[in-house]
Amino acid sequence: MARKVAVVAGGHSKFGKRYDATMRELCAEAYKPIYDEGISQDKIDASVLSYAASQFTGQGAGSALIADYIGLHDKPHLRVESACTTGTASLRAAWGMVSAGLYDVMLVLGVEQMNRVSSATATEYMSQAGDMRWEYPFGISFPAFYALMASRYMSEYGMEHDILAKIAVKSHHYGAQNPKAHLPKEVSFEEANNAIPICRPLNLYDCSLITDGAAAVVIAAEERVKEFTDQPMWITGIGAGASSMMIQDRSTLTSIPGAKRAAQAAYKMAGVESKDIDMAQVHDCFTIAELIAYEDLGFAEPGKGPELVENKENYHDGRIPVNVDGGLKSKGHPLGATGVSMTYEVLKQMKGEAENPTRQIDDVKHGLVHNVGQSGQFVNVFIYERGW
Amino acid sequence: MARKVAVVAGGHSKFGKRYDATMRELCAEAYKPIYDEGISQDKIDASVLSYAASQFTGQGAGSALIADYIGLHDKPHLRVESACTTGTASLRAAWGMVSAGLYDVMLVLGVEQMNRVSSATATEYMSQAGDMRWEYPFGISFPAFYALMASRYMSEYGMEHDILAKIAVKSHHYGAQNPKAHLPKEVSFEEANNAIPICRPLNLYDCSLITDGAAAVVIAAEERVKEFTDQPMWITGIGAGASSMMIQDRSTLTSIPGAKRAAQAAYKMAGVESKDIDMAQVHDCFTIAELIAYEDLGFAEPGKGPELVENKENYHDGRIPVNVDGGLKSKGHPLGATGVSMTYEVLKQMKGEAENPTRQIDDVKHGLVHNVGQSGQFVNVFIYERGW
Repeated sequence: MARKVAVVAGGHSKFGKRYDATMRELCAEAYKPIYDEGISQDKIDASVLSYAASQFTGQGAGSALIADYIGLHDKPHLRVESACTTGTASLRAAWGMVSAGLYDVMLVLGVEQMNRVSSATATEYMSQAGDMRWEYPFGISFPAFYALMASRYMSEYGMEHDILAKIAVKSHHYGAQNPKAHLPKEVSFEEANNAIPICRPLNLYDCSLITDGAAAVVIAAEERVKEFTDQPMWITGIGAGASSMMIQDRSTLTSIPGAKRAAQAAYKMAGVESKDIDMAQVHDCFTIAELIAYEDLGFAEPGKGPELVENKENYHDGRIPVNVDGGLKSKGHPLGATGVSMTYEVLKQMKGEAENPTRQIDDVKHGLVHNVGQSGQFVNVFIYERGW
Repeated sequence: MARKVAVVAGGHSKFGKRYDATMRELCAEAYKPIYDEGISQDKIDASVLSYAASQFTGQGAGSALIADYIGLHDKPHLRVESACTTGTASLRAAWGMVSAGLYDVMLVLGVEQMNRVSSATATEYMSQAGDMRWEYPFGISFPAFYALMASRYMSEYGMEHDILAKIAVKSHHYGAQNPKAHLPKEVSFEEANNAIPICRPLNLYDCSLITDGAAAVVIAAEERVKEFTDQPMWITGIGAGASSMMIQDRSTLTSIPGAKRAAQAAYKMAGVESKDIDMAQVHDCFTIAELIAYEDLGFAEPGKGPELVENKENYHDGRIPVNVDGGLKSKGHPLGATGVSMTYEVLKQMKGEAENPTRQIDDVKHGLVHNVGQSGQFVNVFIYERGW
């Protein structure tokens, strides 16, 4: 194997309806804290500057635009796109180039600006990540995909909607403590369980947010890490998996086959097991997605995710804290930024820098990021290890 | 440094106005010869499946769609997008993941389907790779960008248009011998020099084609190369460079700063000089781009590119054969496929498999690919070495 690589710094814009900022300004906002830590442009060899969907802004080839705006116009850059896994796919590509020795220090920045169009149009644009010949024309949007999974889970394991509502309550509980969150407000169980339906059995509080925002991390090769930090977060496991395009081609609707493969590959590479993970950031584009993630990642046996929820084992002081930054549900889901934002949260937790002791997890040695694209067509799982 | 990586196989669809095929079918056509050589899906660990602009098809996140269609739905994949450098940017990202040891064997496939919209709309979509706030609204499309460069070159060095026409004549001479070319017809000097203006001083024959097509290569880590071929083409140099977004921010219009940086980095990594290169595939989106490439790559001194053209040193039996497959000009320019198609041509030439002795270059030991995005905002240069 090639060189070890660590995450050495991170930055994060405020997530929300950012009518005050253009896409390039969101990127600058995410890069600024990194610059302020002393990682100026001359210290960065190359970058991956990514967003998921050019439809939102009509801007193609935006890595050039972003590089130019944040002062990296004379450094190599590229854009990676993998729907909602854009952030972690960017990190996977950048990791390769650093580990292989092409660059020592790379900036990985993800962004999306989704609120200049209506919610209906945004949903349509997101749906274009599905098959534009054989799914979209028949009305299959993402809420519909995940509603089918939720229905199947309920049918197979006898779950009621209250479990999903409890996941939403947790997300909002933690989002309310995250100053970068899009919708930082507590939600009661009654509100979450009885909200207006979006696509049955999913209601308003089962769905993630249409958000503007950006997040960034800097990765460095082992020989260079000490120049930047004495608290490096090592990338020890990378697993990627894919599933059939259409869910009718899959063997199951209560698990995402590509996610299981990605998790297995990441655990193997990192030399750890699911029980060794101290915290996880999982892709809760819908509450049912978070529930399925518990099982795909091995935190619960198939069909036993609801017990983990009932026992609050997914809270910051539970057995496996999940999304204690608010998740896609309350923090928000700017598609291209999401995977990078998850990584940034693991770094903060490892460093003990969560804003509030009521959401800081004790002694994080191993953190996991799980990022899913489309309805599971691609998944990236990363495992991080505290380096101090 | 990590593992050596070689190109071990390639495939190429027919380029042209492919109303007979969808984007996914073009991809299958490019993958088929690779499959027929025995590299079936089970031998591929992961893929980068890319196109430049989702506007043409409305299809986002297409790597999942392509993976599904060509039977790689259960293998990790991602899409890289870097405008017209999408193909080589995909290869740069894939090289990293293989060299670093994450995967042993990867498929890199580039595609674009551009002819389902009118030429005017296609030009508009391509222009969206420029700055959508500060360029596009003021009428700056790609022909305009390169016309400005051509005007400046003429003014600075006293060149006449006939030099550009001779480049077009060469491209069509070779394109006419390439069965995969979009417009395989000879063009006379008079036709090329006196065609209708597109954006003065550039005329119809100075501009590349709006093309549908796909190309693919397989790369493998050194330990695995022998399973696939005894004629590996080693990737020995990779250089990437970037330039300021808007040309008014650049120090020169007769050179692309990022291209010079990319070339220097690639030569250094490969341990060769420009004089060691036996053939080059350069990014001739416009004839002036090919001329400038001669100088940025060191094949001619600044202002001396026209002498190389006058002396036909860029022909297959000249000092530095360039684009003897027809180039973007005659072979065509399906954006995301272009960089991969260039790589495929170097492989063919090294193996002595060009269709016609009148375009086969003798004894290619070192080949170079030069791929430019937007008006030079990003450039990738690859150097390849014959491994047998």
